[in-house]
Amino acid sequence: MAHMDFDHSERAHIVMEQVERFIRERVVPNEATYQEQLTGSPDWTRWRVPPIVEQLKGQAKELGLWNLFLPDETHGAGLNNRDYAPVAELTGRSFLAPEVFNCAAPDTGNAEVLVQYGSELQKEQWLLPLLDGEIRSGFSMTEPAVASSDATNMAATAEVEGDEVVLNGQKWWTSGAGDPRCAFLIFMGVTDRSADRHRRHSMVLVPMDAPGVKILRMLPVFGQLGEPHGHAEILFDNVRLPAEAIIAGPGRGFEIAQGRLGPGRIHHCMRAIGAAERALERLCERAVARVAFGKPLMNLGGNRDIIANCRMAIDQARLLTMKAAWELDTQGTFGALVSISAIKVVAPNVLQQVVDAAIQIHGGEGVADPELSYLMGMARALRLADGPDEVHRAMVARLELGKYS
Amino acid sequence: MAHMDFDHSERAHIVMEQVERFIRERVVPNEATYQEQLTGSPDWTRWRVPPIVEQLKGQAKELGLWNLFLPDETHGAGLNNRDYAPVAELTGRSFLAPEVFNCAAPDTGNAEVLVQYGSELQKEQWLLPLLDGEIRSGFSMTEPAVASSDATNMAATAEVEGDEVVLNGQKWWTSGAGDPRCAFLIFMGVTDRSADRHRRHSMVLVPMDAPGVKILRMLPVFGQLGEPHGHAEILFDNVRLPAEAIIAGPGRGFEIAQGRLGPGRIHHCMRAIGAAERALERLCERAVARVAFGKPLMNLGGNRDIIANCRMAIDQARLLTMKAAWELDTQGTFGALVSISAIKVVAPNVLQQVVDAAIQIHGGEGVADPELSYLMGMARALRLADGPDEVHRAMVARLELGKYS
Amino acid sequence: MAHMDFDHSERAHIVMEQVERFIRERVVPNEATYQEQLTGSPDWTRWRVPPIVEQLKGQAKELGLWNLFLPDETHGAGLNNRDYAPVAELTGRSFLAPEVFNCAAPDTGNAEVLVQYGSELQKEQWLLPLLDGEIRSGFSMTEPAVASSDATNMAATAEVEGDEVVLNGQKWWTSGAGDPRCAFLIFMGVTDRSADRHRRHSMVLVPMDAPGVKILRMLPVFGQLGEPHGHAEILFDNVRLPAEAIIAGPGRGFEIAQGRLGPGRIHHCMRAIGAAERALERLCERAVARVAFGKPLMNLGGNRDIIANCRMAIDQARLLTMKAAWELDTQGTFGALVSISAIKVVAPNVLQQVVDAAIQIHGGEGVADPELSYLMGMARALRLADGPDEVHRAMVARLELGKYS
Amino acid sequence: MAHMDFDHSERAHIVMEQVERFIRERVVPNEATYQEQLTGSPDWTRWRVPPIVEQLKGQAKELGLWNLFLPDETHGAGLNNRDYAPVAELTGRSFLAPEVFNCAAPDTGNAEVLVQYGSELQKEQWLLPLLDGEIRSGFSMTEPAVASSDATNMAATAEVEGDEVVLNGQKWWTSGAGDPRCAFLIFMGVTDRSADRHRRHSMVLVPMDAPGVKILRMLPVFGQLGEPHGHAEILFDNVRLPAEAIIAGPGRGFEIAQGRLGPGRIHHCMRAIGAAERALERLCERAVARVAFGKPLMNLGGNRDIIANCRMAIDQARLLTMKAAWELDTQGTFGALVSISAIKVVAPNVLQQVVDAAIQIHGGEGVADPELSYLMGMARALRLADGPDEVHRAMVARLELGKYS
Repeated sequence: MAHMDFDHSERAHIVMEQVERFIRERVVPNEATYQEQLTGSPDWTRWRVPPIVEQLKGQAKELGLWNLFLPDETHGAGLNNRDYAPVAELTGRSFLAPEVFNCAAPDTGNAEVLVQYGSELQKEQWLLPLLDGEIRSGFSMTEPAVASSDATNMAATAEVEGDEVVLNGQKWWTSGAGDPRCAFLIFMGVTDRSADRHRRHSMVLVPMDAPGVKILRMLPVFGQLGEPHGHAEILFDNVRLPAEAIIAGPGRGFEIAQGRLGPGRIHHCMRAIGAAERALERLCERAVARVAFGKPLMNLGGNRDIIANCRMAIDQARLLTMKAAWELDTQGTFGALVSISAIKVVAPNVLQQVVDAAIQIHGGEGVADPELSYLMGMARALRLADGPDEVHRAMVARLELGKYS
Repeated sequence: MAHMDFDHSERAHIVMEQVERFIRERVVPNEATYQEQLTGSPDWTRWRVPPIVEQLKGQAKELGLWNLFLPDETHGAGLNNRDYAPVAELTGRSFLAPEVFNCAAPDTGNAEVLVQYGSELQKEQWLLPLLDGEIRSGFSMTEPAVASSDATNMAATAEVEGDEVVLNGQKWWTSGAGDPRCAFLIFMGVTDRSADRHRRHSMVLVPMDAPGVKILRMLPVFGQLGEPHGHAEILFDNVRLPAEAIIAGPGRGFEIAQGRLGPGRIHHCMRAIGAAERALERLCERAVARVAFGKPLMNLGGNRDIIANCRMAIDQARLLTMKAAWELDTQGTFGALVSISAIKVVAPNVLQQVVDAAIQIHGGEGVADPELSYLMGMARALRLADGPDEVHRAMVARLELGKYS
Repeated sequence: MAHMDFDHSERAHIVMEQVERFIRERVVPNEATYQEQLTGSPDWTRWRVPPIVEQLKGQAKELGLWNLFLPDETHGAGLNNRDYAPVAELTGRSFLAPEVFNCAAPDTGNAEVLVQYGSELQKEQWLLPLLDGEIRSGFSMTEPAVASSDATNMAATAEVEGDEVVLNGQKWWTSGAGDPRCAFLIFMGVTDRSADRHRRHSMVLVPMDAPGVKILRMLPVFGQLGEPHGHAEILFDNVRLPAEAIIAGPGRGFEIAQGRLGPGRIHHCMRAIGAAERALERLCERAVARVAFGKPLMNLGGNRDIIANCRMAIDQARLLTMKAAWELDTQGTFGALVSISAIKVVAPNVLQQVVDAAIQIHGGEGVADPELSYLMGMARALRLADGPDEVHRAMVARLELGKYS
Repeated sequence: MAHMDFDHSERAHIVMEQVERFIRERVVPNEATYQEQLTGSPDWTRWRVPPIVEQLKGQAKELGLWNLFLPDETHGAGLNNRDYAPVAELTGRSFLAPEVFNCAAPDTGNAEVLVQYGSELQKEQWLLPLLDGEIRSGFSMTEPAVASSDATNMAATAEVEGDEVVLNGQKWWTSGAGDPRCAFLIFMGVTDRSADRHRRHSMVLVPMDAPGVKILRMLPVFGQLGEPHGHAEILFDNVRLPAEAIIAGPGRGFEIAQGRLGPGRIHHCMRAIGAAERALERLCERAVARVAFGKPLMNLGGNRDIIANCRMAIDQARLLTMKAAWELDTQGTFGALVSISAIKVVAPNVLQQVVDAAIQIHGGEGVADPELSYLMGMARALRLADGPDEVHRAMVARLELGKYS
């Protein structure tokens, strides 16, 4: 076992405490307000953003709890992955929290891409408003017609014609594209199918209002659309943009995607772990409070075993994710290959296990409870988003077997 | 192992073939019509019943594929549990099928209760229209504030005052109560708390429009309301009815509930198995058709193991349910105690396992697919409806350990 | 679901009762005697058969509880698979029982082969003493150097030279070959590698004392040799026999192996289920009797869930095996393909699950208990014998997917 | 998440490298020598120690790879738990390694007890030869007749009579007591049943040759006695010793046992993890080398999923154990309560999972392989030793639920 250090910086400890308190005191108590604003009025479309969101964002920004995900010290908070990971976990405790701190996907990944690869113009026009929380963004990579876990399958194109780039193709699971504030998408397409397989693709910054961008439908997760953000299926129909819209120039899409990968995984997985902690809280609260057959549920049958199994699974998943963060910080993506694949399997499955148990102990209330339903949808979708379990298990096995050849 | 015979009668074989064909040729092809009628028009409330339902009911009735669940030869089809079980499985293959054959819960259980325990007046006024498919019904037993798996917890009351009965209490998961055709509920409440614990409760037939019956809200399953039927939370606020509304007289609620139990379990579980077969079909169709990394998914990783595990689990669950049906037919509820508890655990869990696998192999499409989402909600709710897994495992263990004392 | 009937004949019911009583009254009480005779005396080699075995065989034979496995009415009991299955289950309750009724593998399979394919001479010389319980036998098919689950891998040869056949190759897991009474082996080898893959192999009857048959070592299962029977690794070094030793003539090995398959699976799996019932008994007896923290273990933690899960798993495995038996009886091997693969996965895994749980509840005594240790070895070995789980899952999946092509 | 640091000291890194090389170059290559010396000669009793052991011990001692487990800087290597943990993992890779470095249980725990609580005389007479590797020792705590996971059950007594202490009772699972070098036992018994439950017990140092110490039998693990060490069931029949034999004086047994607990758990669990790594190596080597159906096993079915699951489970178990070590080092036993219970469940179960998978991929060879058989016995016994899974899950749940009261 190599030298391993999961220590957090002093600053990270301070940020963690502030974030924890902000979520506890301001975010969680306003979840109901959010729901009421979203659904309470008959003349309100669900595709508008409840005002409480911007209020909370203002407060968080004022306290400096803002863009914490961004390791860049100029544009962001300058925390490394180890330091941001526990913050991400905390934001997983409320569906509302990531956005409030301007730390919600896919803005986070998009911002990282623009910080690292964006032109000055792109930074000024799109990155700064994004980091200011004025606009939001989407990421259009995965496609309905092909297995996106195999990148060579990608059918969408980003063809260079003179000083223009022309986008064609159909993308889906473009999360956040239903949000009225969504101002741009990052689109990935094939530019040169004959090039080396790591030089074929380009990433292109597409304004939402570019001609040819058509939202075909919003995709449900277990029947829920997730308004006001939603997940869009989008047709890019001869979308014609100046060639400068290609981020870092043609053929660098794969490289950019790779770099976007590691931190995004840490974020997703730590949020999943925070969500699992929240679900375990719900489970335990119910186990303590609810009585059947003359005893609190915690004293019935195998409920304590279930609780112990949840605790052990969560603690292990967190440690594995922290290890991935540490490897990413100290050895880069290639040093973290096993771990960032492993956590992508482990964390969402742990979340699903804990949420399922929390639902079960709630009896009939379990399937009706909005928070538990949201968490179940989150868990189930996370087992597929960014590659299904199967693809990541295959990667872990490939690296393991690689030791023997 | 005792003498065991899972044979179906000649007539059952004929009915099975007819039902199978009707579902394949008429029901499944009209699922899309149903969805379109339900959701396609902006001026259509989702709480109305799509016309296609009544059309299909008419066709099924004409062919005699009607009330097949009812063993009573006068009012129903006269099939025993072994004969109806495979029919119930077939109806599990489409969300639309049970109603089309007038074999949907909770009408089935309610009809059985009225056939066996109802007064002549109740039969004429409520049973006949129910069996004609003119009205529908609900069953109000479980309560939000208490653990309903422990019957002694029941808080709702059905108090006899002179020649009247007065109902008070709050019930939920009254399925079908949102349906505009829902004409009556069967309500269970405590009549005499001082009586022997098997003589305390009464069942009361309550017209939906009785004063004091108030639907408080419709309960979501993973955020979906299941229009136009839905699951209601209902306040019974001093609902005053003539004492004849008490089915079979005061104090017989527990006895009636017990008798209702066995066949209902068989129906639910066989439908779950049919649903699992449908999910496995979806899984296999995808495994055969979808290509990634140059191969159909069926040739990747552990997908064949997953398929084999699903097949083995389904086949075993079906056999166990058939055994329960056989025991119920030949030895009554008491001879089937282990099996009807066991299937209540096994069948919904198998359904959840298969649906989860089917979602997974569909990738991003999995969580957006309406049928798979419906099936996941069905599976998850079934693990709680009619008692959570835990209660039934406890019963199986109690009977097993009973051999040693 | 097709017409299915698990009924047992009148005669089977009578036999089951007799066998149950014989095992309970005579076999189980003599298990200790057997162990004492086997191990109690320092001047006794473990590779001799304890005298109690022959005494019990004599008693069983006298009562006609003899060769019950053999469907042939002339040589055997004339029970079909459905009728013998519950008898096989009963014999799984004691390590000693199968032999006592002359129903122990691999004699059972060997006898079936000789009844169906043996020459008159082979029947007289080998089958009759085998059925009389005077000799025992072995089956040499699987090989150490190759994956035997892939039959095309077989390296051993049975080459015809004039009117002789010459055997070469190394076989292992030849169970029973250590038994001093073991008089012959059935050996499988390649006769003509260029023939159609179903016509390449031959089965040859090899007397144990044929020149060139060398036992290389006895194979342990978890360190136990299973004296006095054992599992041998055997070198066939130019074993030269008259060509009549080839059962049914050259090239029919595959055909014979196929026919041997189905009934053998039923026997193995039903014995595994009987063994699982025995393990569950041990589990429950301990759960009832042992006290910790002031309560019997059955009232602690998840022990009742474990017991319920065992009961549900066993009951399902039994039903699936009965279904396989019924299919075999009514539709032959090809009608039973899914089931006889499925039970080969299900039954040994259920046994392993139940035994593991039984060990666990026994605490430190669990790993030291001879019966539980024996059952664990049996379970673990059964998951590999006659093809590992993986091969059978693959077959179930292949047949399932075959519906979609 | 609190400040967490899994860093190892410089010295630990050097030791790890030396130990790793010593095991690879000298221990593993001599495993066969050991087996041959133990079993190869007919006139050699298995209860003698093969000479290779002492040779390897001499070499390890010379290199200073000796008593590494002991944090005491005077008597031991002065490594803390974090530093020793990876060394313990390495020793888990060979059954022979722990003893070679004088780091084998129960000597490790006994030495810790004597360093911390022993009198000068005890140190001189027993501790020094133990640390020199001249003698070995045993630990007699658990009892056959009662559930030892509930300490209040303990029946054995250590009664003070004047200036003597008299021991009575029956103990089992006294590991190492069969070793001819075993010179003393530490015995735990009740001294004053009326005292506070944490002051009732005493620990007593008992010379093996004290009158009244009788080995009743050696306990098998899955039928294997584990010669030449073994696990003894011992009768203490009026064993009369001077009162000074009571370690740290009467009534301090519970306190001593508690302190012995944490480090012992770390050692056991890290060895289990090392053993799991070894089993995964065996699994992968087989997956790469063995061919069936024209492909290496690693390319068949779900084998890569199995490998990935093993890798993910091992990595998580290791991190959790490192966390427990870190907590123990920085916060003491009470700061590590959750973790040291959790690892006791997690690590042995992971080992069992990996070993079972390794056996399975080896086919018939799997159950006959001595190393895999040894590892299966180790895994299975570890799930019971030092409290069954159930007791530790209960502790994890109790601490989790404690947050809500």
